[in-house]
Amino acid sequence: MSISGVKALVFDVFGTVVDWRTSIAREAAPLLARYDESIDPVVFADAWRARYQPAMQAVRAGTRPFVRLDVLHRENLDAALRTVGIDPAAVPGTDLDRLNLAWHRLDPWPDAVEGLTRLKQRFVVAPLSNGNIGMMVDIAKRAGLPWDAVLGAEVARAYKPMPEAYLRTADILGLEPGEVCMCAAHNEDLAAARSCGLRTAFFARPTEHGPAQTTDLRAEQDWDVVADDLIDLARRLGA
Amino acid sequence: MSISGVKALVFDVFGTVVDWRTSIAREAAPLLARYDESIDPVVFADAWRARYQPAMQAVRAGTRPFVRLDVLHRENLDAALRTVGIDPAAVPGTDLDRLNLAWHRLDPWPDAVEGLTRLKQRFVVAPLSNGNIGMMVDIAKRAGLPWDAVLGAEVARAYKPMPEAYLRTADILGLEPGEVCMCAAHNEDLAAARSCGLRTAFFARPTEHGPAQTTDLRAEQDWDVVADDLIDLARRLGA
Repeated sequence: MSISGVKALVFDVFGTVVDWRTSIAREAAPLLARYDESIDPVVFADAWRARYQPAMQAVRAGTRPFVRLDVLHRENLDAALRTVGIDPAAVPGTDLDRLNLAWHRLDPWPDAVEGLTRLKQRFVVAPLSNGNIGMMVDIAKRAGLPWDAVLGAEVARAYKPMPEAYLRTADILGLEPGEVCMCAAHNEDLAAARSCGLRTAFFARPTEHGPAQTTDLRAEQDWDVVADDLIDLARRLGA
Repeated sequence: MSISGVKALVFDVFGTVVDWRTSIAREAAPLLARYDESIDPVVFADAWRARYQPAMQAVRAGTRPFVRLDVLHRENLDAALRTVGIDPAAVPGTDLDRLNLAWHRLDPWPDAVEGLTRLKQRFVVAPLSNGNIGMMVDIAKRAGLPWDAVLGAEVARAYKPMPEAYLRTADILGLEPGEVCMCAAHNEDLAAARSCGLRTAFFARPTEHGPAQTTDLRAEQDWDVVADDLIDLARRLGA
């Protein structure tokens, strides 16, 4: 397991660096309880997130111009509320807009700040997330994530796993694809990055989707590095 | 002098945060001496920089698609070499490409790291430079500039002083223009930012162009904040 020649580590964020599920549930709980105290905020978080991939598909397919994830999240929020029996038309618009910013207040996994801080000593570290720049800045500022730059879908104008998301990110950094390592807790993200020539690092987040998670529990290809978490990744990379 | 409501400080970089002239002269000196020991490296630095604004004009005018500053610098390098009597065709291409990266190795002014580090405690801090992302990352990594994100022309796809450079930057951060303060040692940059509704902070860099500098020695409008340098700016903003 070696990534010699790698100069930048780029990171998936949702699930890989931050625990979106617990955070969204916490942020949504007060509003949900106002309408129906029986709603499980985690069920709502899952319903909101379930609309994430489908919403990006129109942009990936080119049938919709690029819009940032904040916009897609806001559109998906109405549908997610209906899923748990709340009519979004009954909720004040300012409350919906404020709830939409819950995605800007996601907690890091416990190893994230230490791991990234160590890795930053040896590598350029940046998110390569489908989240937009403002969202990534707010998350990082609140959590103390020490990014060198905020890259990703909004900078590349393409959502992962489109090849442009990976290739443009390397080009923006002035690097060859093989000088960039994609770090993610998701095998599909890494497979797309590898097909573009990027190096790959995996560590599992076995409770991203809750205690009954069945996906991404282990590396499904021979990724360049397989670690336990971000601190272990730093150790394996000598950082 | 108040900037109440401001959440992000965005910075001009060349001249404002880093001393491009001394740095470029230092980086170019060995190559120049190989061809002609009588060339003053500072004269070469000024010749290279003199082609900076004209080169962006075609992009601003829309007659050329956006290209990053690395590309414009490389084009300008040949002409700058001719100015000091060196035929660029006589210089190996790899040497020219390496010299072009001199703009990635600019030294910060002595107050920059401490000032930005303090300001980062209270505000989002990011470059809003015409330099490209990779250049800004390399400068920051080498100098220890603690940016929260790397914004600017390449992210906005517009060169300052086009309004889009300022307005898209605020929008990307999810902020109103009045919640963003442009910080620069150049009155023209601030005038353009103000016309877009941004707040403005000025401090002079009286030796950016050498000891005989005649421009931007003082604030030419009543900018929202006028400081001595970045540390003084932090003090004035309570950071």
